[in-house]
Amino acid sequence: MVKKVGVAILGLGVVGGGTYQTLVEHHDFYLKTQQVDISVEKVLDLNLERLKALGVPQECIAKNIEEVLADPNVDIVVETIGGIGVAKTFVTAALRAAKTVVTSNKELICKFSHELEKIAKHNHCGLYYEASCVGGVPIIRTLLDGVQANHIQSMMGIVNGTTNYILTKMTYEGADYAEVLKEAQKLGYAEANPTADVDGYDSMYKLSILSSMAFHTKIPYTKIFREGISTVNVKDIAYGREFGYTLKLLAIGKNSDKGIEVRVHPTFIPTNHPLASVNDSFNAVYMTGDAVDDVMLYGRGAGALPTASAVVSDVIYAATHSDIKYSTFKNNATAESNVKFVSDFASAYYIRLAVEDKAGVLAKVTGIFGKCGISIVQITQKNAESAEDERVPLVVITHKTTENAAKNAVSKINASGIGSVEAVIRVEQ
Amino acid sequence: MVKKVGVAILGLGVVGGGTYQTLVEHHDFYLKTQQVDISVEKVLDLNLERLKALGVPQECIAKNIEEVLADPNVDIVVETIGGIGVAKTFVTAALRAAKTVVTSNKELICKFSHELEKIAKHNHCGLYYEASCVGGVPIIRTLLDGVQANHIQSMMGIVNGTTNYILTKMTYEGADYAEVLKEAQKLGYAEANPTADVDGYDSMYKLSILSSMAFHTKIPYTKIFREGISTVNVKDIAYGREFGYTLKLLAIGKNSDKGIEVRVHPTFIPTNHPLASVNDSFNAVYMTGDAVDDVMLYGRGAGALPTASAVVSDVIYAATHSDIKYSTFKNNATAESNVKFVSDFASAYYIRLAVEDKAGVLAKVTGIFGKCGISIVQITQKNAESAEDERVPLVVITHKTTENAAKNAVSKINASGIGSVEAVIRVEQ
Repeated sequence: MVKKVGVAILGLGVVGGGTYQTLVEHHDFYLKTQQVDISVEKVLDLNLERLKALGVPQECIAKNIEEVLADPNVDIVVETIGGIGVAKTFVTAALRAAKTVVTSNKELICKFSHELEKIAKHNHCGLYYEASCVGGVPIIRTLLDGVQANHIQSMMGIVNGTTNYILTKMTYEGADYAEVLKEAQKLGYAEANPTADVDGYDSMYKLSILSSMAFHTKIPYTKIFREGISTVNVKDIAYGREFGYTLKLLAIGKNSDKGIEVRVHPTFIPTNHPLASVNDSFNAVYMTGDAVDDVMLYGRGAGALPTASAVVSDVIYAATHSDIKYSTFKNNATAESNVKFVSDFASAYYIRLAVEDKAGVLAKVTGIFGKCGISIVQITQKNAESAEDERVPLVVITHKTTENAAKNAVSKINASGIGSVEAVIRVEQ
Repeated sequence: MVKKVGVAILGLGVVGGGTYQTLVEHHDFYLKTQQVDISVEKVLDLNLERLKALGVPQECIAKNIEEVLADPNVDIVVETIGGIGVAKTFVTAALRAAKTVVTSNKELICKFSHELEKIAKHNHCGLYYEASCVGGVPIIRTLLDGVQANHIQSMMGIVNGTTNYILTKMTYEGADYAEVLKEAQKLGYAEANPTADVDGYDSMYKLSILSSMAFHTKIPYTKIFREGISTVNVKDIAYGREFGYTLKLLAIGKNSDKGIEVRVHPTFIPTNHPLASVNDSFNAVYMTGDAVDDVMLYGRGAGALPTASAVVSDVIYAATHSDIKYSTFKNNATAESNVKFVSDFASAYYIRLAVEDKAGVLAKVTGIFGKCGISIVQITQKNAESAEDERVPLVVITHKTTENAAKNAVSKINASGIGSVEAVIRVEQ
């Protein structure tokens, strides 16, 4: 019993092009293995050269969104435009026309999933977005259908390939941030304007989507603490390695009796932690559930074909499941307005100071930490970086304390005259 | 709209007990997050003490399977007995009574899934078995609904916790196989009769199930090449490390134009491969698809609660999806009798010889490899292991060749009088 399904693709860029290619090349494979006959009925893109290069037949090229949505053969609309301008307009119109939507658009889903899911529900169609997070890695399907028996207690993810590439280079080649960024831009791994990646916005959008699923409530991105990697000093990566830590930009979500905490920031993790060996542009999400314990999913977080894999897997899921609305409403139904968020979260800290190399300094530094209620795991003085430098680096690793206590200690040290705080990096175990 | 679902559990051992506990303790959580009201209606186990310890109410304790299957409130039957005796009889009867079955039984599914799926299909009920492979890691859900857009080209899995625990100890503590096995038995990580684990049967059953899903055809376990870890010498693990390799018992499936190859054996993989750092009783499956590229799932492959996580996730899936037959028939529909299997598979090899330490031996050894059409990547003589020993170890790493060519070289060396082959270990990149 073969099911016939017509697809339209809006935006034939990297991901949309990969999706087109995957659907066309695998047509017979899906017919055989999934009993579904998927045809690309319409594509919409302003760049006609691109459509030609992809070999899109003339009769599939739509002139405008109206033509796509008026086509009765189009059951599923794939949105791979990105952003929240025209993409939002088109997705809204598609759902209103009762077309199921599959999208790779993290910003759209992060900011407007609730609004869009309501429209989808009203029109009895589905909204799928596996491709919005961590490329081809089926993290959303896993949260929905693989570990749904669990209270997810925590998730830590490397969910941005650009920053992981940069940090990997800084870690293993000792190169400076600015230098590596320039190289990444040359290779096309980083955008000309790298802000969305390096300042953690991309990770923040993804964390909002993933933690909403994991914790069964809407986590607005505005609740996410965010710090990027642009101020990371390669020196701290090297010192961290000496203490057995590797630096990663982590998207962290935790759910406990105290509430939900969500944050994106450069984080030291033990070098033998599975996330520490996720290198280059690879991504991974490490979760802990109350039954399953630790689970990690690892793979390519970006790229034309890996992301197309997620888009097409959603298309097949939508086409082969009669309960097409499944992924759409589950979270919505349990969204709560009275979610408690932890603002003053607990963490261990790596703090690097520059202090004068003289007697009594160590006592003063440890004294300040003590007064702030912070206990120290380790304190190590490093060699001065140059002969002219009268100050030496002093690296402090603390036990678990709170963000506010750490901030307090930092401002007290800076005000004390004994030295200045040069770096503060959170540490997870 | 809450759906009411009644569950019966057959066999309240480790996994069955964990399942009971998880379902009871999470009742309200599933009601809230999944809109499903799951009640345990019946349990069946001969050990009444065990049932008492788990706090099973008297009215839920069934006297026999007939009582379970006659209960109209039982929609889903969980089978956690194991083996292919009474478990097969009960599962068959449950499916005939039109109850959906969720099982953790790898041997049953490996050997009889086709027969059982036919019965399920005929009775319009489902057969789910996520818990049969890799404990709580949602590998089956991922193959069915997460990466189904891909031709899966290869999978390599560490799918048995006992052997991975033993090999990890041998690798990092340099302990002998026999010694570690004894310790593992004392700790309850290995059975008194360890054959199923150490000789690779457990991995073989799981590979049969997983490769059947990945390659969309039934892979009988009889087609799987199998070699266990009981003859692994700790010396070879140490030598392998020097060459940059780590030893793991891998379940390997490959699908190419040449056909399907499936094998379980101790395997050297590069120490920087993600699978190499999967240690102790953790499991992982590393797959490559034509769109998604490399993907790895990592987690606990055994244990009461991790396996219960998979059982209960299947129960929820069955309860919340109207297309309950989904996981049941997909493979069946595409099973083919004309599958081509590769018998003489290609691999690189690590071969350790014991040879006399005299001039000309190296030339003779390399000569034999050359005559067998095998090119050598590296050949290294190690120090004699004791002063009395007149022979020295010679380690050869070959380029990719075939199993038959390697066997041929081994027998030629053994017949040559220049030394004997002491170890042959396959190498994957």
